Amino acid sequence: MTGKISVIGIGPGAYDMMTVRAVRTLEACDCIIGYHVYVDLVRDHFPDKAFLTTPMRREEDRCRMAFEEALKGQDVAFICSGDSGIYGMAGLVYEIAADYPPVAIEVLPGITAASSGAAILGAPLIHDFAVISLSDLLTPWEKIEKRLKCAAEADLGIVLYNPSSRKRADYLERACDILLTILPESRICGTAGNIGREGEETHIYTLGELRHVSVDMFTTVFIGNADTTVINGKMVTPRGYHVERKAND
Amino acid sequence: MTGKISVIGIGPGAYDMMTVRAVRTLEACDCIIGYHVYVDLVRDHFPDKAFLTTPMRREEDRCRMAFEEALKGQDVAFICSGDSGIYGMAGLVYEIAADYPPVAIEVLPGITAASSGAAILGAPLIHDFAVISLSDLLTPWEKIEKRLKCAAEADLGIVLYNPSSRKRADYLERACDILLTILPESRICGTAGNIGREGEETHIYTLGELRHVSVDMFTTVFIGNADTTVINGKMVTPRGYHVERKAND
Repeated sequence: MTGKISVIGIGPGAYDMMTVRAVRTLEACDCIIGYHVYVDLVRDHFPDKAFLTTPMRREEDRCRMAFEEALKGQDVAFICSGDSGIYGMAGLVYEIAADYPPVAIEVLPGITAASSGAAILGAPLIHDFAVISLSDLLTPWEKIEKRLKCAAEADLGIVLYNPSSRKRADYLERACDILLTILPESRICGTAGNIGREGEETHIYTLGELRHVSVDMFTTVFIGNADTTVINGKMVTPRGYHVERKAND
Repeated sequence: MTGKISVIGIGPGAYDMMTVRAVRTLEACDCIIGYHVYVDLVRDHFPDKAFLTTPMRREEDRCRMAFEEALKGQDVAFICSGDSGIYGMAGLVYEIAADYPPVAIEVLPGITAASSGAAILGAPLIHDFAVISLSDLLTPWEKIEKRLKCAAEADLGIVLYNPSSRKRADYLERACDILLTILPESRICGTAGNIGREGEETHIYTLGELRHVSVDMFTTVFIGNADTTVINGKMVTPRGYHVERKAND
């Protein structure tokens, strides 16, 4: 009998940031597959499972591994950091499914970095926002640039995923330069690093300052909208107009 | 001694879609405050707690209630549906905190409708996207319109929150008409209703069809990007170029 594949977002990494459903599915599965860094995050909590890993960038191999195990009758927990459906493996699993006999697939969402980073920075995403990855590994840079410009013109809050890597050390600076053609230097921004893990840190900057900040690949960057402000050291975006609050005051 | 306020996103509503940390915090708190619909979703799981509710739209009263209980020494779990930091109460709590003596505040993120809806539709958010609310209660409609246009021009996936209400029955139609000035009628879209609750349903449409669809306030709407497709009945957005996959084939 064929097993099922559960594509699970484990959130930022801490056990208690997984959903109850993710924990129960990991407890019930036969084998856990994922990039070794994420597998190491959950390994100790589910010691009796089989673990299968592949190195970074071997995403397709990892997907095929999941189908091969499921076809052997194993219930597979295929884990991703954050949300499996936001820059996660859920898409590739559905794409690759076409190459195999039918296997039951379910996607279990997790807490994505936009949510977990916002929570430690304050409340930057209380109004409309865009989520944009600065990785040009699979996306032309011109498209990223256009998205940044459009998001700034629309006064959307902006969350930047993958703001940096060894090969892309200046990408955040480049993104800030594009945003600064439209947004003021004073725009409130924030960074959230190592969310929910050792070394967790947040910083609040102006956009002019952010341009000079060096971030690593474990950092998520937040650009406020025109109303975003700092209250008691927290980055806070109010809900629209403020009509309601003023009416009550 | 002053209690603390935990602003908790409970996700789409099912107990098992809360994070472990949300459950533990609800178990440990003294009182649970929220809009009565959300309080009713968790009440049976935490029967020994005090529950305080206010009607819809009394958000500020609800926040003040939380501070008053915390100042009496109660640890307060202040609950929101979805993520407390995405169109949630975390922002208003920080804003209102200025009116009270210092109280410890923490934000516990939850699974927002973009994540939970995407998971049941397939994998529509594997690439960059914007989250836009169609509610013009606190935002001028012109601003919403501009955001829709910019998101479409940027080829972002789009998630529409609050696509409808009794007073705004034609807002999804209006939004589709704006998007159709830029996007083709054939653009893949999806709706996710009553996510994780009784009556859960998903539908996939073209943008031209979506224009004629009537949705309720418990529905979240997804507009694909130019690459979004349907695979085995699931709405799937691939990761950028597909270079990697082709290279491995």
